[in-house]
Amino acid sequence: MKLYTTTLAPNPRRVRIFMEEKGIEIPVQEISIMEGEHKQEEYKKISPSSKVPALELDDGTVITESMAICRYLELLHPEPALFGSSKVEQAKIEMESRRIELELMLPIASAFRHTHPAAAALENPQIEEYGIAQRENAINRLNLLDEELGEQKFIAGDDYSVADITALCAIDFGGLAQIEVPSSLVNLSRWLENMRSRPSSAQQ
Amino acid sequence: MKLYTTTLAPNPRRVRIFMEEKGIEIPVQEISIMEGEHKQEEYKKISPSSKVPALELDDGTVITESMAICRYLELLHPEPALFGSSKVEQAKIEMESRRIELELMLPIASAFRHTHPAAAALENPQIEEYGIAQRENAINRLNLLDEELGEQKFIAGDDYSVADITALCAIDFGGLAQIEVPSSLVNLSRWLENMRSRPSSAQQ
Repeated sequence: MKLYTTTLAPNPRRVRIFMEEKGIEIPVQEISIMEGEHKQEEYKKISPSSKVPALELDDGTVITESMAICRYLELLHPEPALFGSSKVEQAKIEMESRRIELELMLPIASAFRHTHPAAAALENPQIEEYGIAQRENAINRLNLLDEELGEQKFIAGDDYSVADITALCAIDFGGLAQIEVPSSLVNLSRWLENMRSRPSSAQQ
Repeated sequence: MKLYTTTLAPNPRRVRIFMEEKGIEIPVQEISIMEGEHKQEEYKKISPSSKVPALELDDGTVITESMAICRYLELLHPEPALFGSSKVEQAKIEMESRRIELELMLPIASAFRHTHPAAAALENPQIEEYGIAQRENAINRLNLLDEELGEQKFIAGDDYSVADITALCAIDFGGLAQIEVPSSLVNLSRWLENMRSRPSSAQQ
């Protein structure tokens, strides 16, 4: 197996944090998105859609989509379970994980893509009004997340899970879209400090 | 268990098609979004975020997010497997399912929310330019899907899966956003006819 990844992008980072939390070591090849390496023929032979990350299996099968890669790795290495153990736990983690993706990560990514000059090549047309509205959605969701974390230690309940990984990667990426966690959100700030104290958070 | 659902919305429809394909019968309660029932206190006691569908378990736990509900139902009723059987199948289906959600269903939903007068209450501000750009993304993705379906019978390979359910619900919803499958896309049209011939497609 081989993982094609890139640094400083929130989706590939999710996979690398996931791997470190589970103690999984796979040969890794860096693909420079800044240099357009993902759009070159050589990489498109592996990942036709140019997507990074991509996990190449020994039989040549290639899996893209960060959560598909993480789920596959969880099937190979079930412990520690980051998608939940019991059926209900699995359902709750899938629910919270998707809520964070759709309600927080996606608005942050959209705010970045529609407002940041460096994203002009990614998003055509850039529509600033849309980016600003999404920034507001993201900030509202941070407030709700703060309330939720007043009642539970982790995003999906009592245990650390893939939903925490997604939330960390989304929030850390928020700076590029002028989205920061205000210190007045004490529950969220405490959770964030907890996340950043984990060695896996050093993966960038 | 009890499922709160609504007709004529693509996400709840995914869950109901999924249930019919697996022969799962659960008491169902219709929540009228047109009449704002999802925003009323009574429903918010069950689903605080007002989301529909919601699956209420016997212990009172409530699962929202269509794919979290479907995954939970798959855990309870593994056959026929709609999220795949082998590890690699599961990874491929998760990958294709997410690609359809992010690259087709989301653009279609965004096109609807940002261009249709009836969606003004759902999306504030409505940004027509964004809706039109997303319509174009959706149409481009339909063309790619046609190519992909020239090489395989179903969205994720040789077998019917949850990815086909998502694609059907997205495409059928496209009409509201002026997104139609042109008959020139013969592979996609053949797949669509195949999907519509399944009894489960009668779920609306």
